[in-house]
Amino acid sequence: MLEIIKSRKNEAVKLAAKLVDSASFRRKKGLFVVEGARLCCDAALSNIEIISVYFTLAAQAKYEAYIAKIMQRCHFCQLVEEHVAQILSTTKSSQGVFCVCRIPDESHKLINMNPSGMYVALEQIQNPANLGAVLRTAEALGISGILLLGDCCDIYSPKALRAGMGAVFRLPCYMEKDTAVAVKQLQNMGFTAMGAVPAETAQSILTTHFSKPTVLLIGNEGNGLTETAIKACDISVTIPMKGRAESLNAATSAAILMWEMVRSKIQQKPEETSCR
Amino acid sequence: MLEIIKSRKNEAVKLAAKLVDSASFRRKKGLFVVEGARLCCDAALSNIEIISVYFTLAAQAKYEAYIAKIMQRCHFCQLVEEHVAQILSTTKSSQGVFCVCRIPDESHKLINMNPSGMYVALEQIQNPANLGAVLRTAEALGISGILLLGDCCDIYSPKALRAGMGAVFRLPCYMEKDTAVAVKQLQNMGFTAMGAVPAETAQSILTTHFSKPTVLLIGNEGNGLTETAIKACDISVTIPMKGRAESLNAATSAAILMWEMVRSKIQQKPEETSCR
Repeated sequence: MLEIIKSRKNEAVKLAAKLVDSASFRRKKGLFVVEGARLCCDAALSNIEIISVYFTLAAQAKYEAYIAKIMQRCHFCQLVEEHVAQILSTTKSSQGVFCVCRIPDESHKLINMNPSGMYVALEQIQNPANLGAVLRTAEALGISGILLLGDCCDIYSPKALRAGMGAVFRLPCYMEKDTAVAVKQLQNMGFTAMGAVPAETAQSILTTHFSKPTVLLIGNEGNGLTETAIKACDISVTIPMKGRAESLNAATSAAILMWEMVRSKIQQKPEETSCR
Repeated sequence: MLEIIKSRKNEAVKLAAKLVDSASFRRKKGLFVVEGARLCCDAALSNIEIISVYFTLAAQAKYEAYIAKIMQRCHFCQLVEEHVAQILSTTKSSQGVFCVCRIPDESHKLINMNPSGMYVALEQIQNPANLGAVLRTAEALGISGILLLGDCCDIYSPKALRAGMGAVFRLPCYMEKDTAVAVKQLQNMGFTAMGAVPAETAQSILTTHFSKPTVLLIGNEGNGLTETAIKACDISVTIPMKGRAESLNAATSAAILMWEMVRSKIQQKPEETSCR
């Protein structure tokens, strides 16, 4: 039987709570916190290193199967009282299961990207729910990975993790502060860099060929791509529309752009799909 | 100078507050409440009938231009104190602008649909944020209108209105409780009814022609379309995927399906787009 942490002043709990609250602390420690039985189990079943798991007695009873799987891949397991679990939670009705995980140290090495892959790069994206939604869609559609350029919101924030439904554990994610440097490196690796813009003067994605390895750059929710990013790209592309183009939200634009990127690949390989 | 409502017990305010809270009361009265300066202005500039507008002194100063436009198309204008405005608000930081609007009475007349249009029908959709997102995307992509089949969440709920960014004011929306009856009527009007399903045995949307007037049926977030709906449709279609298909969310699936519906129309009419 595990001992129960009864105090919010427990050092391990205080560290975890600070990881939940602060993006800069997460970066400093190289750690982040996952909340929820299913999401923690997703992390455990992926290549993410689980440092510790905390759960309440109620959670132990309710999510027994999930917690058993998590405990198999975890260095340190600990029961916590409900009022202790509360300081780790960012949800209204917490499931009472939390993992402290290590941020993969591969995240800054663009050189490890698959040179024949299809990638999406998000520049200065600010809304963690949007970021999570893009990750989730990217994984669903078979995109090779995600790049975060400039000052993006934190991919390991509670909101982004929740919206991403665990995609961040399985999808390679790369980060680079300097967009121009990143695009140059990608081009040197053989990628075509395409900048998605709302301008009607850009090339329609309907006439764009995604046959070569491509990185598609998508900009900030309010302001789009920076001038630096647009200039660095090989080409600007746009979603042609009959309706009110300005009202397509960031995650939905990204979904349509990603769909167009993978669409031709799916068509090329009918044996992998259900085309009849 | 307008008088100020100082009491939360004011009858008009109490009615508006009840409209905010209760979907059944909205249906009973045929009225709904819009919150936010921009969204209220959107309603005023569309064909929605504005019964009354309520705003705080702070809002009057801050959103003068919006409020002027709203007042031009409104039967009754009234200042309210901050604490009165609070009982009408469902947001953390309210702008203090609210309109009581009339639900269009055209909403049950499928016969008024454009017989050469492209429509999306949502069956038993439960999440108002998803519903709003689908409406917003539908408008952006130039879909002709939306049908709500079975027991859907309320299109006039505060969350759905906010997520929809005013699309509900401009996009024709039709409602019908009985899916089989609705599909039969649509087929009699000349529409092809397509049911979107996750099954690999369904026809890929990549090989589906949307040249005829079409209604695409999309099901509930968790359970998909009902058997009744699938049987009533002329054909089942699916999004072929290489990735983890199960993790595409309802609003994103709908966006990709709608994009495929309108994609060929955009391609057929290059003069309307920016294809170069």
